[in-house]
Amino acid sequence: MIRNEDFIQSKQVPGPTKEEVRCLVMCKAHICKDDVVLDVGCGTGGLTVESAQRAQEVISIDKNPEAISMTQRNVIKHGLLEKVRFIEGDALSVMTELPSFDVLLIGGSSGELPQIISKGYEKLNLNGRIIVTSILLETRVEAVETFKKLNMIPDVVEVTIAKGKITDRGTMMMGRNPITIISAVKNEDGNP
Amino acid sequence: MIRNEDFIQSKQVPGPTKEEVRCLVMCKAHICKDDVVLDVGCGTGGLTVESAQRAQEVISIDKNPEAISMTQRNVIKHGLLEKVRFIEGDALSVMTELPSFDVLLIGGSSGELPQIISKGYEKLNLNGRIIVTSILLETRVEAVETFKKLNMIPDVVEVTIAKGKITDRGTMMMGRNPITIISAVKNEDGNP
Amino acid sequence: MIRNEDFIQSKQVPGPTKEEVRCLVMCKAHICKDDVVLDVGCGTGGLTVESAQRAQEVISIDKNPEAISMTQRNVIKHGLLEKVRFIEGDALSVMTELPSFDVLLIGGSSGELPQIISKGYEKLNLNGRIIVTSILLETRVEAVETFKKLNMIPDVVEVTIAKGKITDRGTMMMGRNPITIISAVKNEDGNP
Amino acid sequence: MIRNEDFIQSKQVPGPTKEEVRCLVMCKAHICKDDVVLDVGCGTGGLTVESAQRAQEVISIDKNPEAISMTQRNVIKHGLLEKVRFIEGDALSVMTELPSFDVLLIGGSSGELPQIISKGYEKLNLNGRIIVTSILLETRVEAVETFKKLNMIPDVVEVTIAKGKITDRGTMMMGRNPITIISAVKNEDGNP
Repeated sequence: MIRNEDFIQSKQVPGPTKEEVRCLVMCKAHICKDDVVLDVGCGTGGLTVESAQRAQEVISIDKNPEAISMTQRNVIKHGLLEKVRFIEGDALSVMTELPSFDVLLIGGSSGELPQIISKGYEKLNLNGRIIVTSILLETRVEAVETFKKLNMIPDVVEVTIAKGKITDRGTMMMGRNPITIISAVKNEDGNP
Repeated sequence: MIRNEDFIQSKQVPGPTKEEVRCLVMCKAHICKDDVVLDVGCGTGGLTVESAQRAQEVISIDKNPEAISMTQRNVIKHGLLEKVRFIEGDALSVMTELPSFDVLLIGGSSGELPQIISKGYEKLNLNGRIIVTSILLETRVEAVETFKKLNMIPDVVEVTIAKGKITDRGTMMMGRNPITIISAVKNEDGNP
Repeated sequence: MIRNEDFIQSKQVPGPTKEEVRCLVMCKAHICKDDVVLDVGCGTGGLTVESAQRAQEVISIDKNPEAISMTQRNVIKHGLLEKVRFIEGDALSVMTELPSFDVLLIGGSSGELPQIISKGYEKLNLNGRIIVTSILLETRVEAVETFKKLNMIPDVVEVTIAKGKITDRGTMMMGRNPITIISAVKNEDGNP
Repeated sequence: MIRNEDFIQSKQVPGPTKEEVRCLVMCKAHICKDDVVLDVGCGTGGLTVESAQRAQEVISIDKNPEAISMTQRNVIKHGLLEKVRFIEGDALSVMTELPSFDVLLIGGSSGELPQIISKGYEKLNLNGRIIVTSILLETRVEAVETFKKLNMIPDVVEVTIAKGKITDRGTMMMGRNPITIISAVKNEDGNP
């Protein structure tokens, strides 16, 4: 995994997703080298860069032009520009015009999570995966309910990480915000 | 419990111990109205004030004069001045000169935790309780090992709290540093 | 707090609520000696017994007759029978016939959480508190949303506890299910 | 990652390391296809199998013959037999006779963690990684202290996972034991 400090960061743009969470999202996404990945709400580009290292192509979407610019800078920094397309805009409209894909990562949904999941499901190839990361109580439930309606079986993992900070006094455990990762696989019988 | 925002606070002095942790420490301390409580490393005075509401007397110790001053201000704010004695100094030296007590709270130990626990044990009345709160990996183990050497049975509770922040987008879960509470009771047979 | 092992327990009835969680619920409930407490979904009786030690009266409700019987046994064991009334039945119907109360604890709601909170709010005295404990993602959101509709400000605390088990090899940290405590106070301006 | 249920399991042998923890350990180990990996305390073989999918060779060590047999069955099940060597015995003695390696995974250390880390450090190639997973308070501190003595900078991550169980009543969050992953890299200047 790329270290947190190896991403260019800005106070105006959220992220990057922390190393351990990126790791777990990649684990749930198990991206293959032929996969096309959609990163909705790409923010600083943490998941875009990790995905681009594994996939054939990544399409990164954000409503915030500063996020698109930030993601672009990080993609360039890690030498992955030829693999990533950047689209500033609304995920729902963008997805309508896209061809199919294999992995849909949703880090931000501007209150349209159920619609984004449903639209994503339509466009998802068989055995494709949708992975939602959330720090909001409400988003978790919306994700679970939308997956159920689509006959997908949600995998729900709440991750609480504390990192040790080595100090003169000892190893101080610094807490992070708990993240919930809700994911599901599109397959014929609905089983993961 | 007193709300976090009802304590006077300063960037120079750590604390106050957060509401939920104060609550759990008070639970482990089960202070009665005849009890004498020693608060070592009193910081902002969160545990001193809570203890003073329940005990006969609290003796608050800190090496940092600003912490003593801060604790004093919070004790005054909550109308408990007649119940609390403030001692600026080194816990080990201070304890040597004190009479016995019922509850020993250790929030800071300046690298002398085993000695403070051992000295505290000597001065502790029968059925007295020692409660250590820690965010350091090393302190947890020192506390457990010292309690064991004293034939006290350590109760170890690691508490990870996330608080919901109500926002327009939803309920954002904000993580706190995990706290470990290690406590033990002094009794004849070593059972809690 | 009463120790977990000091409650009579049965595999047929959930509970008792673990010591640390009881402690935090009591903290949020801050029961006074004149208070009347309603314990909806009393289960094994953990919160009923703790409440009865602090309140004037506790009314314990459960749909499950075995839970009522279990709560009763624990209330008797702790010598609090004269303070507790036991009602086997549906919380919503029971609440309609009850006079007002000061604290409403909701540990189980059989899918009727919004209605129970709303009905409870009607019957709650000014400055009364409602405390919901939940291990379900959905319940957390329902509680937050219902409190908001009633102009109550929800306090949301997610608590993850690990307990140390002292073994020959060392102190093994054993995780518990994370519990979310959602509480709110009824007051004129909606502020806690 | 391989799903937990895709490992053959037995009550006599601990493990397999859960999916999310395997994922984080693999993240910290970043195994390349030329790497030789040592898995000390291989248990059920969860980390051995994951490593064998990424490395040139894995050497799996356990004092418990049942663990060796279990790991072997899981290695065979996942078609990786030609990549794994199995050694029943004491890690310290075994390591003395082994050539150098790139990754040392330590899941069990029978009270000899400092010695195993130190011996492992000697045999570790430059840029090699040592990863300790622990559920014991004491082991965490031993690992941190040993890494520091070797001038390695420990990365300490405590991971608390709760998994959602989809039920008729909702998504029940089931807690797991918190795991601490302590890792470090061997390099000339001691920086990770």
